[in-house]
Amino acid sequence: MKRILALSSVLLAGSTSMVLANDDLMERIDDPNQWAIQTGDYANQRYSTLDEINADNVGDLQVAWTFSTGVLRGHEGSPLVVDNVMYVHTPFPNIVYALDLADEGKILWRYEPKQDPNVIPVMCCDTVNRGVAYADGKIFLHQADTTVVALNAETGAVEWSVVNGDPAAGETNTATVLPVGDKVMVGISGGEFGVRGHLTAYSIADGSQVWRAYSMGPDSDILVDPETTTHLGEPVGENSGTNTWEGDQWKIGGGTTWGWYSYDPEENLVYYGTGNPSTWNPAQRPGDNRWSMTIMARDIDTGMAKWFYQMTPHDEWDFDGVNEMILTDQEIGGQERKLLTHFDRNGLGYTLDRVTGELLLAEKYDPAVNWTTGVDMDPASEDYGRPTVVAEYSTEQNGEDVNSTGICPAALGSKDQQPAAYSPETELFYVPTNHVCMDYEPFRVSYTAGQPYVGATLAMYPAPESHGGMGNFIAWNNITGEIEWSIPEQFSVWSGALATAGDIVFYGTLEGYLKAIDAQTGEELYKFKTPSGIIGNVMTYTQEGKQYIAILSGVGGWAGIGLAAGLTNPNDGLGAVGGYAALSDYTSLGGQLTVFALPD
Amino acid sequence: MKRILALSSVLLAGSTSMVLANDDLMERIDDPNQWAIQTGDYANQRYSTLDEINADNVGDLQVAWTFSTGVLRGHEGSPLVVDNVMYVHTPFPNIVYALDLADEGKILWRYEPKQDPNVIPVMCCDTVNRGVAYADGKIFLHQADTTVVALNAETGAVEWSVVNGDPAAGETNTATVLPVGDKVMVGISGGEFGVRGHLTAYSIADGSQVWRAYSMGPDSDILVDPETTTHLGEPVGENSGTNTWEGDQWKIGGGTTWGWYSYDPEENLVYYGTGNPSTWNPAQRPGDNRWSMTIMARDIDTGMAKWFYQMTPHDEWDFDGVNEMILTDQEIGGQERKLLTHFDRNGLGYTLDRVTGELLLAEKYDPAVNWTTGVDMDPASEDYGRPTVVAEYSTEQNGEDVNSTGICPAALGSKDQQPAAYSPETELFYVPTNHVCMDYEPFRVSYTAGQPYVGATLAMYPAPESHGGMGNFIAWNNITGEIEWSIPEQFSVWSGALATAGDIVFYGTLEGYLKAIDAQTGEELYKFKTPSGIIGNVMTYTQEGKQYIAILSGVGGWAGIGLAAGLTNPNDGLGAVGGYAALSDYTSLGGQLTVFALPD
Ligand SMILES: O=C(O)c1cc(C(=O)O)c2c(n1)C(=O)C(=O)c1cc(C(=O)O)[nH]c1-2
Ligand SMILES: O=C(O)c1cc(C(=O)O)c2c(n1)C(=O)C(=O)c1cc(C(=O)O)[nH]c1-2
Repeated sequence: MKRILALSSVLLAGSTSMVLANDDLMERIDDPNQWAIQTGDYANQRYSTLDEINADNVGDLQVAWTFSTGVLRGHEGSPLVVDNVMYVHTPFPNIVYALDLADEGKILWRYEPKQDPNVIPVMCCDTVNRGVAYADGKIFLHQADTTVVALNAETGAVEWSVVNGDPAAGETNTATVLPVGDKVMVGISGGEFGVRGHLTAYSIADGSQVWRAYSMGPDSDILVDPETTTHLGEPVGENSGTNTWEGDQWKIGGGTTWGWYSYDPEENLVYYGTGNPSTWNPAQRPGDNRWSMTIMARDIDTGMAKWFYQMTPHDEWDFDGVNEMILTDQEIGGQERKLLTHFDRNGLGYTLDRVTGELLLAEKYDPAVNWTTGVDMDPASEDYGRPTVVAEYSTEQNGEDVNSTGICPAALGSKDQQPAAYSPETELFYVPTNHVCMDYEPFRVSYTAGQPYVGATLAMYPAPESHGGMGNFIAWNNITGEIEWSIPEQFSVWSGALATAGDIVFYGTLEGYLKAIDAQTGEELYKFKTPSGIIGNVMTYTQEGKQYIAILSGVGGWAGIGLAAGLTNPNDGLGAVGGYAALSDYTSLGGQLTVFALPD
Repeated sequence: MKRILALSSVLLAGSTSMVLANDDLMERIDDPNQWAIQTGDYANQRYSTLDEINADNVGDLQVAWTFSTGVLRGHEGSPLVVDNVMYVHTPFPNIVYALDLADEGKILWRYEPKQDPNVIPVMCCDTVNRGVAYADGKIFLHQADTTVVALNAETGAVEWSVVNGDPAAGETNTATVLPVGDKVMVGISGGEFGVRGHLTAYSIADGSQVWRAYSMGPDSDILVDPETTTHLGEPVGENSGTNTWEGDQWKIGGGTTWGWYSYDPEENLVYYGTGNPSTWNPAQRPGDNRWSMTIMARDIDTGMAKWFYQMTPHDEWDFDGVNEMILTDQEIGGQERKLLTHFDRNGLGYTLDRVTGELLLAEKYDPAVNWTTGVDMDPASEDYGRPTVVAEYSTEQNGEDVNSTGICPAALGSKDQQPAAYSPETELFYVPTNHVCMDYEPFRVSYTAGQPYVGATLAMYPAPESHGGMGNFIAWNNITGEIEWSIPEQFSVWSGALATAGDIVFYGTLEGYLKAIDAQTGEELYKFKTPSGIIGNVMTYTQEGKQYIAILSGVGGWAGIGLAAGLTNPNDGLGAVGGYAALSDYTSLGGQLTVFALPD
């Protein structure tokens, strides 16, 4: 335990001026009794040192209390706990509740923004929101319509608000924001509407914009230094954000930033990934389409990129690179290094040096993955760092209006937004995965602002010749690139995991079960059926010295879009409706928080 | 215990031909492991002989599983359990789910009627529905739009459907139906729209109409025999349903039948009450307005009335008489008699002989009641059976456009639809009550079919000079007319109670707590905060020999209409919005089933 705490202090404590600007948040992140930001900590480990609930007693877990959010459809993210107050958010219309934990969950305040419901059809994958964040006495809400609001944490009063995008142009939001120092990191959605992605830093004090970094475009837009910003160790050179695009296509080039953000205080870098290039029809955008599908490391103060790594050049499958970057300090090749581990939609688990961006490992974390034979790991090769594409599953090579069948994974990837957890005790990553394949037929599409810009018809189904289910919950070793154990699930595991010092891991299932697993063996120790399918992330906190586990129910997200939006045509929801049709035999729409504890 | 079972068999078993026609249902009603109709049994006792969960161990109760109905707003009624299947209904759009209890609640089928949403604004008091009923392999759903549907209990397929009323004329439904023998009893709502109430018997086999009894109108409409149908022992005489009305007002006279129905197999009588006369402005309808506000006993086969008792002649406060009639066999005045006990909206608890309709007792079950000094109990008096009205609180005497203030109870009564329970062991009634007073200002209104026909402005508030709360949960002795104990509650107890052989009583609160109480002492033994405010009724069943307690959450109904319909003007919702405004500090909209059990 000492070692873990030591590691975590290194990660969180050493640092510069903006740490001082945010001692308040840093202390709360370091305090296992609270849960102040969606990811639990800046490293995105989703690990808690609390161990009152542990492998020995988790079987006795009980529901302590519950709360209905008053909203149906997909509930992603988790509540926060700051001091004795729990902050609960909802999908559109993005209500925020402050619940008094010291007074049986009494509602201290509720904030309900007025939003134009016309934003709903512009959201690609349900009306989800991945939650609010706390810093400096404020609760930050990034609404579906891209308005960022800072609420007074005590009263719910609006302190400032700023508009980050334009829903009429297809720009929407589902992501949480990440407060760091005196700034808050804010992303954008809309890759299916030709939105050019960007990450923006706003001032925590007053909401003024500090910097914005686009995912593609001129160097001044993407905030690179052609000489010092690197890709796999080499300078990116001039115009790297336009010279792998034909004409002006980069202007509607996608690469949105709707995933999770990590931060390393020592390096003063924020890490995140960019989404798919637009359209989904690869024939319409020849070239590598940089910097879509890219892991980015940027200086927090200036936004300048230190390094990039493009995982899937010229995407042909919608394998958005936005999944979380998990920061760990581990020994690899006999050396203690600062690592970044990332489970990409494309089915590869990557381990990189997060200081330099050096690629250390890239291995399939689902054996079903078939579109690539793997990544060229030879630094001397001209294909260094590129995945080798299997012709049969190349929608580019098969061409427009041809249905490429049997591609694994499906567009929603071997993992989508559902975040993994890491335990420094086991040094394993606990990864909620999809085990789904697809047929993909690209077609020509023309761009109209605010209209879908997809250009592909999809069908999805469970990975063939496997256990028949659509998901697995796995334990992954990021040093060896091996799956330590794997729990088959009937549906994709669309919920974020939590690992704790109690030697257990939690996750939720699309049918609605909260499950507790032995972190070492993968043995199931507890399960409970919550009101609705789970796509939220498990979190933990204490109240009066007692440990609680909390999870939002409410089926939806891309996997649950059929139920959430009431769709029945199998090809609707970009193919997810047919794939997950059986879900309606297990659950119904919901929106509830369930809080667990051990009996007194 | 023997004695209780003996009593219940007497009540349920002795009988005629239609019992044979419905052995299936009778056996299930007699089987404490199932819950086949909303009221638990025909006597409306809401008493279960199950005692695995009891006063000694109920403190250990745990949530066993949960289910989101996928619908928000007020959830009244309860699930049914028939064999290993649980049937769960929702408010509008009135979805029905069949859940396989033997397979972790898997959804066997779901039925969602297509209903015109224009019915919603014609529903006076939220989009509630008090649940489905089982008989002869069918699940009966009475939709908001008054369509009665018989679903195949195994497949959910529609076997027949029949239309009971016309929403365009203000006719809607919220009530459950009561299957008896080869018929199903069906009521109607719309007293706030000038609907003339009726009870209708349809054939269980094919939905054909067998008889219909109106609450007012010519003798042939109201199904009376002027000679043999009695009121307080006297024949009602000719034209009793028109001769206390001026002109044709009876045609839009109200007296709707949206409450609960009871049945005595030995007497072959169905018991129910009729609602308020229309309009709420008493000056517009001089006379006693018979047979609004009346307890009715009718022959099941013919619909012919055996006896009536009008509790509130010429209503001036909207004290609908629809609350449930609880049938018991008890000793009173040294004699074993067949009793009917009824807690009326008007604040009086009535005990009658259910064979003859003789009035045995009428006492206030909330000391706050002030509109009457009591009922004239002298059979020789010409006011026999009439409540004595206190002039100060008479909205008739104060006149149109005058605000009568401080009337107790408020229009929603000392008790509304929320049903009480009776334990044959304690011989006490456990009554969820309102402790609310009002200001009431009647005004002239004209009738337009399908438009509100109310004619009064109301304000509601907690009973003054009391404990400050808006409700009590009480134990009532129907022989002595005394309150044995009373638990103060911050809000009205709008949930139906359950009494069990475990010496405990359950009820839910508007904040969302399920509570278990010692049936003898009134001591609170357990409470749990469910996702949303409770207006449903507690039920119990067993699965594989284990006892479960189930309750629907989902705030709404008249008390919760502010939250349910998003209203904020205090006078909206006929005055309930202001009265219950503080509820939004405790709960939010929901729609969830929570099922409890003891730990294994
Ligand atoms: O390209 C985009 O801008 C964008 C946005 C989102 C989103 O904001 O939820 C998703 C996706 N793409 C996407 O590709 C995807 O698989 C996805 C899943 C989900 C979800 O919440 O379940 N959102 C999104
Ligand atoms: O006169 C009617 O037809 C009628 C109907 C209903 C109903 O159907 O719910 C209610 C009432 N009246 C009513 O007076 C009343 O207090 C009431 C409460 C509720 C409820 O479900 O909370 N319904 C009704």
